[in-house]
Amino acid sequence: MSFRGVYPPIPTSFDAAGNVDTRAIGENVTRWMRTGLRGIVALGSNGEAALLDEDESDAVVNAVRAAMPDDRMLIVGTGRESTRATIAASRRAAASGAQAVLVRTPSFFKSQMTADALIAHYTALADACPVPVLLYNLPGVTGISFTPVIVSKLAEHPNITGMKETSPDIERLAQFVSVTPSDFEVFCGWAPVAYPAMAVGAAGAILAVANVAPDACVALFDHVAAGRHQQAAALQQRLTPLAQLVTATYGVPGLKLALELSGYHGGAARPPLLPAPAKARDEIAAALL
Amino acid sequence: MSFRGVYPPIPTSFDAAGNVDTRAIGENVTRWMRTGLRGIVALGSNGEAALLDEDESDAVVNAVRAAMPDDRMLIVGTGRESTRATIAASRRAAASGAQAVLVRTPSFFKSQMTADALIAHYTALADACPVPVLLYNLPGVTGISFTPVIVSKLAEHPNITGMKETSPDIERLAQFVSVTPSDFEVFCGWAPVAYPAMAVGAAGAILAVANVAPDACVALFDHVAAGRHQQAAALQQRLTPLAQLVTATYGVPGLKLALELSGYHGGAARPPLLPAPAKARDEIAAALL
Amino acid sequence: MSFRGVYPPIPTSFDAAGNVDTRAIGENVTRWMRTGLRGIVALGSNGEAALLDEDESDAVVNAVRAAMPDDRMLIVGTGRESTRATIAASRRAAASGAQAVLVRTPSFFKSQMTADALIAHYTALADACPVPVLLYNLPGVTGISFTPVIVSKLAEHPNITGMKETSPDIERLAQFVSVTPSDFEVFCGWAPVAYPAMAVGAAGAILAVANVAPDACVALFDHVAAGRHQQAAALQQRLTPLAQLVTATYGVPGLKLALELSGYHGGAARPPLLPAPAKARDEIAAALL
Amino acid sequence: MSFRGVYPPIPTSFDAAGNVDTRAIGENVTRWMRTGLRGIVALGSNGEAALLDEDESDAVVNAVRAAMPDDRMLIVGTGRESTRATIAASRRAAASGAQAVLVRTPSFFKSQMTADALIAHYTALADACPVPVLLYNLPGVTGISFTPVIVSKLAEHPNITGMKETSPDIERLAQFVSVTPSDFEVFCGWAPVAYPAMAVGAAGAILAVANVAPDACVALFDHVAAGRHQQAAALQQRLTPLAQLVTATYGVPGLKLALELSGYHGGAARPPLLPAPAKARDEIAAALL
Repeated sequence: MSFRGVYPPIPTSFDAAGNVDTRAIGENVTRWMRTGLRGIVALGSNGEAALLDEDESDAVVNAVRAAMPDDRMLIVGTGRESTRATIAASRRAAASGAQAVLVRTPSFFKSQMTADALIAHYTALADACPVPVLLYNLPGVTGISFTPVIVSKLAEHPNITGMKETSPDIERLAQFVSVTPSDFEVFCGWAPVAYPAMAVGAAGAILAVANVAPDACVALFDHVAAGRHQQAAALQQRLTPLAQLVTATYGVPGLKLALELSGYHGGAARPPLLPAPAKARDEIAAALL
Repeated sequence: MSFRGVYPPIPTSFDAAGNVDTRAIGENVTRWMRTGLRGIVALGSNGEAALLDEDESDAVVNAVRAAMPDDRMLIVGTGRESTRATIAASRRAAASGAQAVLVRTPSFFKSQMTADALIAHYTALADACPVPVLLYNLPGVTGISFTPVIVSKLAEHPNITGMKETSPDIERLAQFVSVTPSDFEVFCGWAPVAYPAMAVGAAGAILAVANVAPDACVALFDHVAAGRHQQAAALQQRLTPLAQLVTATYGVPGLKLALELSGYHGGAARPPLLPAPAKARDEIAAALL
Repeated sequence: MSFRGVYPPIPTSFDAAGNVDTRAIGENVTRWMRTGLRGIVALGSNGEAALLDEDESDAVVNAVRAAMPDDRMLIVGTGRESTRATIAASRRAAASGAQAVLVRTPSFFKSQMTADALIAHYTALADACPVPVLLYNLPGVTGISFTPVIVSKLAEHPNITGMKETSPDIERLAQFVSVTPSDFEVFCGWAPVAYPAMAVGAAGAILAVANVAPDACVALFDHVAAGRHQQAAALQQRLTPLAQLVTATYGVPGLKLALELSGYHGGAARPPLLPAPAKARDEIAAALL
Repeated sequence: MSFRGVYPPIPTSFDAAGNVDTRAIGENVTRWMRTGLRGIVALGSNGEAALLDEDESDAVVNAVRAAMPDDRMLIVGTGRESTRATIAASRRAAASGAQAVLVRTPSFFKSQMTADALIAHYTALADACPVPVLLYNLPGVTGISFTPVIVSKLAEHPNITGMKETSPDIERLAQFVSVTPSDFEVFCGWAPVAYPAMAVGAAGAILAVANVAPDACVALFDHVAAGRHQQAAALQQRLTPLAQLVTATYGVPGLKLALELSGYHGGAARPPLLPAPAKARDEIAAALL
């Protein structure tokens, strides 16, 4: 089973009272599924998964799956700090129709997250999880990083079939590609380097900006797949400013604002996230493709 | 209400099946309460709070409170990533008998945790929480830090009465003391600098090593309070090696091992935390006071 | 005047007494100039420029120039901490035949190196320097980085015609390309990302590994220029392990060892650099292309 | 020979043409020597040593020594990136009357500055240097740090008799005190923690703020030596804001401005350092003791 392609890590919609709005989520998903996106990543970082409780998380997964055709891939973020909670969340996601889980490194106890600890954590998970496990490296948030040695070891597990690298460090991504079998799929999670990542072997991309510019992101992927590197490089340049606005600059509130400006459901992020500042609206509007 | 004094941030005991062992917790607390410790901090970083679910957290609080005399202070860690979950956990802790809550900075969305966001988060919490709120700065884990400007502003709230600084940076701790009223209590959370922290105005300390060396930690506090600086400095030197072993070097697994070697309930930490390596036992045994 | 192409930042040879060995340098240069390398970078980081005095630096430049055909480009590293010393060194390099100078950010007074300070430094230099100035960003060494805003501003100066980016961060390199005119040449200084860097618009590369694998590095450049991306990606994968050994892993001592194993003059680095450890020889020998 | 006491790391005065002004330096030194300062540190970080050439450095040392009584200590910063240049500078300083040299860690080749490399560097220096060597740890500038293991080893050399720790990390400073013999003198280089540093065993302090508030800094030292901890803590609080303005906030330009406001020679710093911004004058004037 291959997951090649482009995915949006979708935000979680809330209603006016601040509760999960499954209807809005479903309508957004329906619309995304009319594009060339390969599927959906639910409950990722951009899904404010860290701000949801377990019941809300399950509701999101069910709402997303219900709005997706069967042949599209649903990948669910199920990383928790404890191994047992991660396993439990992964099983629930699989039971709700996820085809894979995307699991960030535990990081609260940073100094104890040795190679041995990470290998034990992911091995226990992969043994127990009914669907494939994708590793999720996001050092900017967690303060720790997979190494090629760890990834190479984990890639030997038959139920660990890929990973997401969320950083601008293409050397690291290329090493993960290099030390793993050709069917181990490395996804890029940092939009401003999506083209170079795919040029050095990434199997696709999971990008916040794919929520608001799905067609352009799919076109970028298709250009590289077809060897049209000049077009890919040019499209990358056009995508980068928007990508930066909806991630590093304005975060999830910026992403939700961009969705509203694009006709999707957006809405407020959950506190402690604050609304994007007033100037964000014009900047994002100007950057939309 | 003053919280001056020394507290152990107690570990959470698990039984052989990996479930919370409230009996063992109660027995440990009973023993700690025979010392000069001012009270207990439950569900802090050392309490593996990040690895517990909400029901387990509540069970720990109840077990601790039940084993404590009424005149001892129970401070409960209730930080969550979302403001609403933090408020909910704080209310439950207060209902279970906590005299204060200790609330770490949300940090998953680091780049969005501006001064405004942190002030809004803690203000909403302090407004809603029935007991005093203590701020908790632990930059080594969260990757973000309070600044004097933020702390100064939050200290104006009548229900934010103190904080814990967990770092070796005495300049920062001294600034927090300096920019807040004299009844705002700053606690030191980094044992190797507990003496200098109290010398520059800390109101006490919350120290992993106080679990295994409660009398020595209380003596350190008493020395400073009485102006016996030479004795304080000498005792600090004796405490530091043990403190480093049960925190930076071997983490919670090392702390639990040290408890066992001291006749308390220790036991395993919850995965992904691995058992301390074999050599830890001798090193810790040699460092016990 | 364009500097497009591939350059080795050559090491500085020392004799048995630890003095600069201009004969060995000249012989190495002669040999490099038989390949497709566009020219030479002398007195860069790999040239141990930080370990040379001013007279030695001048001697190196003269020795290199004397061994180069007139139509090959000589770029000389002339960054110093003070603006006036940087200007003086740049003028001397130009007088000795350098076609450009490559000038790293001053960084001793990190917290004072604001955008204004950097712009003033490079503007004063570019005004005074008889040859084009290339900016040199190496955040891993200096702890500071150019930003797109600074580079965009400096690129307006007619005598600042390009830059070198030494990091694995392709987002940043791509932004430097994006915010500057098309004739502003951005060179990649991090070999493991040389291919993706050129794919997103780098005008060439200045690579330690080009000292020991000049033909492969030139071929990599040619592949990208001709649109042969698959070959470029494949060659990149072969080059990366060697590149890592002669930079991050074993540093300048490893680079000199690799030169010896390739029939060039190598020799010892200057203390405090220590000889590469014994195991380095076999690892490097195995990685040579 | 003990160096206990308080020292100002003096700035280097420049004349209107930007050249070293030895007369101004001498007049400043004469005035400092009327206070209780134990001596002078010349050519430290605050002396803009990184911006001077070798001849200028020698001129500064000679000017300082000439203005000092014989019984005051002259410590000269002689760190260079290469071991041989460091040795040469140290010998020249000793020949000009320095009683000790203060030598920062080489740091350009960070990843190669292993424990072995640092031990070899300082051992070679201590063997060759006619006066005692003081180690200088300033991780905020160099990006590397001594460890207790390295310092413990180097302290065995009879000609390495002390060190300066420039950071707010009191745990590290206390460890350096703890792992070295009682006659190995650890100096604090971070004014906002000078009192706690001396409380845990520092033998004195080398502080930028001692240039502008020498009497207060000496009083702080005397308070601790006499066991007057309350007075020390109170004086520390008064000193900290000024200390921050002349270091982290406005750097050497701020320090020189503060000197002018105090009746000393100040003047401009050397580019790339820019003049302090306009608002600095009022802020510093308000903070002067």
